[in-house]
Amino acid sequence: MRRPKGYARTVTATMRALRKTARAPGAELVEMPVPQPREDEVLVRVHGASICGTDLHIFDWNEWAEGRIPRVPMTFGHEVAGTVEVVGDEVHHLQPGAFVAAETHIACGHCSTCQTGRAHICENLRILGVDVEGAFADYVVLPAQNAWVVGEGIDPDAASVMEPFGNAVHAAFGTGGGEDIATNAVAVIGCGPIGMFAVSIARSLGAWKVVAIEPNDYRRAKASEMGADVLIDPLETDPVEAVLQLTKGTGAEVVLEMSGNARAIDQGTRMLARGGRMSLLGLPDGAVTLDLNDQVIFKEARLQGITGREMFRTWQQTTTLLSTGRVDVSPVITHRLPLERYEEAFAITASGASGKVILLPERDTIDPVPPA
Amino acid sequence: MRRPKGYARTVTATMRALRKTARAPGAELVEMPVPQPREDEVLVRVHGASICGTDLHIFDWNEWAEGRIPRVPMTFGHEVAGTVEVVGDEVHHLQPGAFVAAETHIACGHCSTCQTGRAHICENLRILGVDVEGAFADYVVLPAQNAWVVGEGIDPDAASVMEPFGNAVHAAFGTGGGEDIATNAVAVIGCGPIGMFAVSIARSLGAWKVVAIEPNDYRRAKASEMGADVLIDPLETDPVEAVLQLTKGTGAEVVLEMSGNARAIDQGTRMLARGGRMSLLGLPDGAVTLDLNDQVIFKEARLQGITGREMFRTWQQTTTLLSTGRVDVSPVITHRLPLERYEEAFAITASGASGKVILLPERDTIDPVPPA
Amino acid sequence: MRRPKGYARTVTATMRALRKTARAPGAELVEMPVPQPREDEVLVRVHGASICGTDLHIFDWNEWAEGRIPRVPMTFGHEVAGTVEVVGDEVHHLQPGAFVAAETHIACGHCSTCQTGRAHICENLRILGVDVEGAFADYVVLPAQNAWVVGEGIDPDAASVMEPFGNAVHAAFGTGGGEDIATNAVAVIGCGPIGMFAVSIARSLGAWKVVAIEPNDYRRAKASEMGADVLIDPLETDPVEAVLQLTKGTGAEVVLEMSGNARAIDQGTRMLARGGRMSLLGLPDGAVTLDLNDQVIFKEARLQGITGREMFRTWQQTTTLLSTGRVDVSPVITHRLPLERYEEAFAITASGASGKVILLPERDTIDPVPPA
Amino acid sequence: MRRPKGYARTVTATMRALRKTARAPGAELVEMPVPQPREDEVLVRVHGASICGTDLHIFDWNEWAEGRIPRVPMTFGHEVAGTVEVVGDEVHHLQPGAFVAAETHIACGHCSTCQTGRAHICENLRILGVDVEGAFADYVVLPAQNAWVVGEGIDPDAASVMEPFGNAVHAAFGTGGGEDIATNAVAVIGCGPIGMFAVSIARSLGAWKVVAIEPNDYRRAKASEMGADVLIDPLETDPVEAVLQLTKGTGAEVVLEMSGNARAIDQGTRMLARGGRMSLLGLPDGAVTLDLNDQVIFKEARLQGITGREMFRTWQQTTTLLSTGRVDVSPVITHRLPLERYEEAFAITASGASGKVILLPERDTIDPVPPA
Repeated sequence: MRRPKGYARTVTATMRALRKTARAPGAELVEMPVPQPREDEVLVRVHGASICGTDLHIFDWNEWAEGRIPRVPMTFGHEVAGTVEVVGDEVHHLQPGAFVAAETHIACGHCSTCQTGRAHICENLRILGVDVEGAFADYVVLPAQNAWVVGEGIDPDAASVMEPFGNAVHAAFGTGGGEDIATNAVAVIGCGPIGMFAVSIARSLGAWKVVAIEPNDYRRAKASEMGADVLIDPLETDPVEAVLQLTKGTGAEVVLEMSGNARAIDQGTRMLARGGRMSLLGLPDGAVTLDLNDQVIFKEARLQGITGREMFRTWQQTTTLLSTGRVDVSPVITHRLPLERYEEAFAITASGASGKVILLPERDTIDPVPPA
Repeated sequence: MRRPKGYARTVTATMRALRKTARAPGAELVEMPVPQPREDEVLVRVHGASICGTDLHIFDWNEWAEGRIPRVPMTFGHEVAGTVEVVGDEVHHLQPGAFVAAETHIACGHCSTCQTGRAHICENLRILGVDVEGAFADYVVLPAQNAWVVGEGIDPDAASVMEPFGNAVHAAFGTGGGEDIATNAVAVIGCGPIGMFAVSIARSLGAWKVVAIEPNDYRRAKASEMGADVLIDPLETDPVEAVLQLTKGTGAEVVLEMSGNARAIDQGTRMLARGGRMSLLGLPDGAVTLDLNDQVIFKEARLQGITGREMFRTWQQTTTLLSTGRVDVSPVITHRLPLERYEEAFAITASGASGKVILLPERDTIDPVPPA
Repeated sequence: MRRPKGYARTVTATMRALRKTARAPGAELVEMPVPQPREDEVLVRVHGASICGTDLHIFDWNEWAEGRIPRVPMTFGHEVAGTVEVVGDEVHHLQPGAFVAAETHIACGHCSTCQTGRAHICENLRILGVDVEGAFADYVVLPAQNAWVVGEGIDPDAASVMEPFGNAVHAAFGTGGGEDIATNAVAVIGCGPIGMFAVSIARSLGAWKVVAIEPNDYRRAKASEMGADVLIDPLETDPVEAVLQLTKGTGAEVVLEMSGNARAIDQGTRMLARGGRMSLLGLPDGAVTLDLNDQVIFKEARLQGITGREMFRTWQQTTTLLSTGRVDVSPVITHRLPLERYEEAFAITASGASGKVILLPERDTIDPVPPA
Repeated sequence: MRRPKGYARTVTATMRALRKTARAPGAELVEMPVPQPREDEVLVRVHGASICGTDLHIFDWNEWAEGRIPRVPMTFGHEVAGTVEVVGDEVHHLQPGAFVAAETHIACGHCSTCQTGRAHICENLRILGVDVEGAFADYVVLPAQNAWVVGEGIDPDAASVMEPFGNAVHAAFGTGGGEDIATNAVAVIGCGPIGMFAVSIARSLGAWKVVAIEPNDYRRAKASEMGADVLIDPLETDPVEAVLQLTKGTGAEVVLEMSGNARAIDQGTRMLARGGRMSLLGLPDGAVTLDLNDQVIFKEARLQGITGREMFRTWQQTTTLLSTGRVDVSPVITHRLPLERYEEAFAITASGASGKVILLPERDTIDPVPPA
């Protein structure tokens, strides 16, 4: 262990970590040495790490995971907040004791894309808990530049979900600054946790109406709780018709696509207003077929891919939204479990009857929030 | 005929017009009364009307034409310039004698989209020569607001192709102002006349390299003549590979898609840089299948539908580019024929061995430019 | 009187109008013929016309008025809403009976600036009640294109102040779409009615903190009522210091300058964050001296002139903000008086202890809201 | 000297450096130890360092220098290119042997402004050769992140002026991407070296007309050589009149203010079109008085402070413009002198009859380009 730069707390020699130990379904909670940060890294004691859809794919070891995960054994998990315990020799702006959340996109800093201020889509991007050791553990090592100091007024559990919340912020603002949200109709397609977040963000940026489109009753109820003006169950009501009717035929100026469902993406283009913008964040399983002529070209629609968060404009926006209470994410944090109950946590996540599920290494007691 | 407001020229009582007289292939050159402008319209004596791919569809009466054209008999043709002969009672800013080019998108002026400065994608859009009587004739009636006064320094034949040239200008500038063209790699996919124009526009806006992708040898040679730095025959060379190699793996910051070919559109997304922009102008025959995950979402690419021209920002840009000689469109105007030789004109257009073919009602002599 | 196009109401032959009858202080309420709309105009029966600072200058006949007003006698007043009674022959999209508010910038439609979608800064701009006959009267004639149909859900009195409210909306959105308001610190300098409006708009667009800077106690209290987070009396507290302290030295990302006070404008540049934007709407009496080096150039600040409202993007935004209740302007409408009590109305406006004062031709009873 | 990481060249123990040794006019060429780079820095052997107006102020020790320069003795000079000789322990992306140009704005990386991608206006900004040891020497130490690797196709002397050339690029592109340059009228006020560069950049971005305004005959001739369409001597011709006449009363859409002359800045606002943009780069001596009402507010003009270069978007644009030959800076590099002839170099710079003057430590021979 390197010099702790003036911090008294004793880092334990070993820790628990939830690891993929085989290229197969499942994971193991193992005891292993606490990792050592390199010169430009920090060691963080994990407060909480929430479960992402990606983590579920890795846990289940689906086709995507088989193709994407470079090596096992590896600790997974990436949505994380915690306390800096040790800083590397080359880290000058962070002190042990700082409470940080992790930006999970690790950028090279030197490619053409990084050099033009778009590090989150770095040409040599690596991702925490996918390409490098992750955060479902007592400790995690982060590149110092990926540790965002969480300001006052943000609850530690909320900090644990800042990364996916930031996805929603980035999708809402888009690359143009979100100037098309205020006073306009905004449709959110797919109300998993990021969609739930997006509903509340669009509300707080002054949307005229926020329409939430989601077949799952539990999630639709959550979208309502987060401020949706109109709720649509696409299995009951044609969402394209509904949005066109609401907007007197004009369509939604902004569509935030969070479902990754190919049919829903096509519907998104059909409910979009002329000149409108669709932010694409949900990841479809395969190729998607679109009616470019009528839904994109003649309408001059913009389809905008969204991934990660702008470094660190999105984190500043996220900090403001959360610290001022403009957005309250607590209804989305539906379950908190100790790390060792990870199997239950993944099952709850997979059930669809949950918002964000946080794994908390430090807590002894179970504190699940019952489904609303 | 209404009062000519101080213009001495005698408008003839009848005129020749190239009309669809049946919902079937072909067209007829008929003698018919000169149309009368309504109060907010002008009557224009046609100098030249160039042939668009759309006109070819209407001439051939393909499936699209059968579904799109509301009524026959109708005169078609829409890319037109000529002299105002008569102005309606409510027209106060145009005088007979003005030489004008036609904006072919006829906007309602009162829908939500028009009211926010995007009349070219009006919710009640009608198109000259498609929804209303067109310009392959001695005279054409235009809404006064659609008559753009052609300034000094622009050749009348060049004025006849300002409408499709404006398409290319609008595609290049996009909705963001074209700020991503200068100093960047720009790929133009499909070098029919609009693609040929786009090559020269990208050059004149300061692109780093303009890559022209086109299988037709004649068109590729024209793209070269218009200033392409790199020529790619996609039947010989993988254009995605070629663009990535040229840009050392980064890809093109801007792709201008003018082909409407589904495979080429897919390739366009693959050659696009992270954070890049693809303007979609070419109209595919059917639905298009895209790899949204890797080519749009993870790359944060923008796909931007393009149609028509911004009224009238694009026309001002077009005027400057042409009147200053920044762009010389004369290499693209490959054929000029008298109106009565329309069958030959359509055949030349269909051959692929041509740029723009202009029908000139007033000229007696044939003046075809031989294929380069 | 022209044909009323199917509207039964009898327009009276004469009307009352508050007119400047001499190039001197004061005004006269005179009986005069109801004006007749030309072919592209409409006649509007006035519901209410609110008093602008400009109207006070014209009433008082100060130096500005002497230099700016081209001719008397002239009816003044321009912030107006009412019912269309008669439409001119060339007006096709408006019917008698429509309730409209007036856009007061009358654009030529044909200059270079109009042609690029910026009609509100037309090169040949004329202004209602300044260059042409105005609205402090029973009836007013408007160019048809300047009549904005007020949608459902907007109170007629609120409609009477849509024009100055739109000034505040345009200042807040700026030319960039207002993407810098959300999650950022916004300072509003000068809390007359437009400043009061601006406070509420910045709030509804998701500002982090809205700081209202205003020496007048009454106005500062109104700013508080409209949602200001921080109130500063610049006679008591240095507003630059206060904003820097609030933002931990960074400054306000957006300053909305509504005072026209030279010292306050200078202070605005000093409280602005690096890279920040100051919208300048308040009109200073004379030239203004600025420290461009330290406050603009080294900080890369943007100073953005703001006048009028974008046609008609701002009107759509205004409509949404008001019709959805995002903003409630009723606290700003502090006084309602019948037209004949105009002297009292101007005195109240001049007192500083008022928000908007509306003159209501149709009402018999006084309904002044007592100063808060 | 630290470990040279695989580079054989022997760094000499001492070097020559042009230093301010007293807070008074003049400078001394002294022999001193070669500085050692810290862990995140690199040592660069200077190829050439060009003289900036700022350097002249420091040499002359005017009022600005007295107030701005924190300490002497100090080596000054900041526009520099050279070869990396030694890299610090924490530098992982640069190798000795790399040829680099210096970004002279040293950002903290952690303030709010840095974190939102605007490091060039960092809240804790330090400047090479002003706040820290500079480049008029055989060697200079740079923070590794400030060393831009100069690509192929750029002449070493051109690399020595990439920093001021980048100023002009940043001014031309502005914060909006320079989308208003193409097809529009651009006025460049003040044709010192940065103005000369700006003329050529505006040309290469497709401006309609580039108007160069400069009283000095030598500089005006250089502006012509760099591609100005119209030359104005403001002592002979009213530049406001001239620009308005050229643009038929509309004004210049873009003004690039490089003079820092208070009167010229005022004139810049007066020649600006409605809705136009003035980039302010020249530093006025004191406060500047402007007619905000008529020239900014009613015209909705934007005044945009410009300093430094965007890191590193501007450097990529600069690299493309220079490496492709879009812009040829060689006419601006008018004098090359050995370091020891610094007094002559400063005299030439002060004369006004020069473009860029480069001091070349390595060369033995004088190679002044005679004034054009």
